[in-house]
Amino acid sequence: MPLLASDRTVGRLSLYRRLLSHLLQEKVRSVFSHRLAEAAGVTAAQVRRDMMVVGYNGIPTKGYDVESLIESIGQFLDAPDPEAVALVGVGNLGRAILSYFDGRRPNLKIVAAFDNDPSKAGQVISGCRCYAVRQIPEVFAENEIATVIITVPADQAQEVCDLLVDAGAKGILNFAPVGLRVPAYIHVENVDMTTSLEKAAYFGRRP
Amino acid sequence: MPLLASDRTVGRLSLYRRLLSHLLQEKVRSVFSHRLAEAAGVTAAQVRRDMMVVGYNGIPTKGYDVESLIESIGQFLDAPDPEAVALVGVGNLGRAILSYFDGRRPNLKIVAAFDNDPSKAGQVISGCRCYAVRQIPEVFAENEIATVIITVPADQAQEVCDLLVDAGAKGILNFAPVGLRVPAYIHVENVDMTTSLEKAAYFGRRP
Repeated sequence: MPLLASDRTVGRLSLYRRLLSHLLQEKVRSVFSHRLAEAAGVTAAQVRRDMMVVGYNGIPTKGYDVESLIESIGQFLDAPDPEAVALVGVGNLGRAILSYFDGRRPNLKIVAAFDNDPSKAGQVISGCRCYAVRQIPEVFAENEIATVIITVPADQAQEVCDLLVDAGAKGILNFAPVGLRVPAYIHVENVDMTTSLEKAAYFGRRP
Repeated sequence: MPLLASDRTVGRLSLYRRLLSHLLQEKVRSVFSHRLAEAAGVTAAQVRRDMMVVGYNGIPTKGYDVESLIESIGQFLDAPDPEAVALVGVGNLGRAILSYFDGRRPNLKIVAAFDNDPSKAGQVISGCRCYAVRQIPEVFAENEIATVIITVPADQAQEVCDLLVDAGAKGILNFAPVGLRVPAYIHVENVDMTTSLEKAAYFGRRP
């Protein structure tokens, strides 16, 4: 893995890659930094600095080659081999997220979903098999899962998080509205949709 | 409206309120700042500073009164009257978000959903009525909608955003993975689930 980039850099690279993929779908072969910058909502200078981080060597006067830039970002962001992801909590939100990510990132695929409702075990939802929560250790070991998505209610999130860390989780995407307590080597990304909506409403109300 | 708080402060207050609501459901009547801090993943000093922002006067030695603290935060964060919210893009993600927010925040209710598929108009999904995109101006005027949620694909997001701003949107919660261009008085909160998952995976891979 190359040098570790900052949180914001990784966020921008992830966004660039998606924007570039849209361009490729539209048969756009090359793009200037200021166009990519505009689509991403950043400055062109920022885009050029980020390209240095991923080690992309383009010819600025001709624009970036879309396909090879996608490849360079992938080499930087992705693991060398496809990674298996697990999701815990197959309620409304969990199902929506399974559906949202289905087929979206071949290198980062949700291969197992867990729920404490035993009747869900064995079901296949958006191409992902469901298991009982007690099967976490064996399924994690079998699939070498290190990245997890938590979509359980707030009052169950810490307990689930502890189970996941014990089973080998290293990166956690947490949708439960609680601050998870984890060892220092674990990375937690929090997505709190209620807070985001309340912020949009609050700051939208500015005089 | 009281003094405008920072983005992070508003985020923490929103989280405190949810944590306090869980406590209230469990019949917990008072809570010490360090307990609330632990649940929110912040320091007790931070919690006490935030309480000063909302103007809550508690007796620290007895802990905060859960019910009146929820009320104080509400007076600070919420508009005096319930606010109407709209969502645009009734695909998988849009449906999941309608379901997720249904009944969750009485003061911030999604009252209308819009989609460019005319067959969805007239449907009621998770208690929310669907309309055609061309009805945005009239429905916004009728319901005084200022807060919106965008769940359309990336390539339609800017066009939809422009329509919403013209119709009176002030605060936008954007799930589309693009940087929206908006006038300076509009507030945009971006939630990018793909980037969040890629960050969880990337930083989880740290040596």
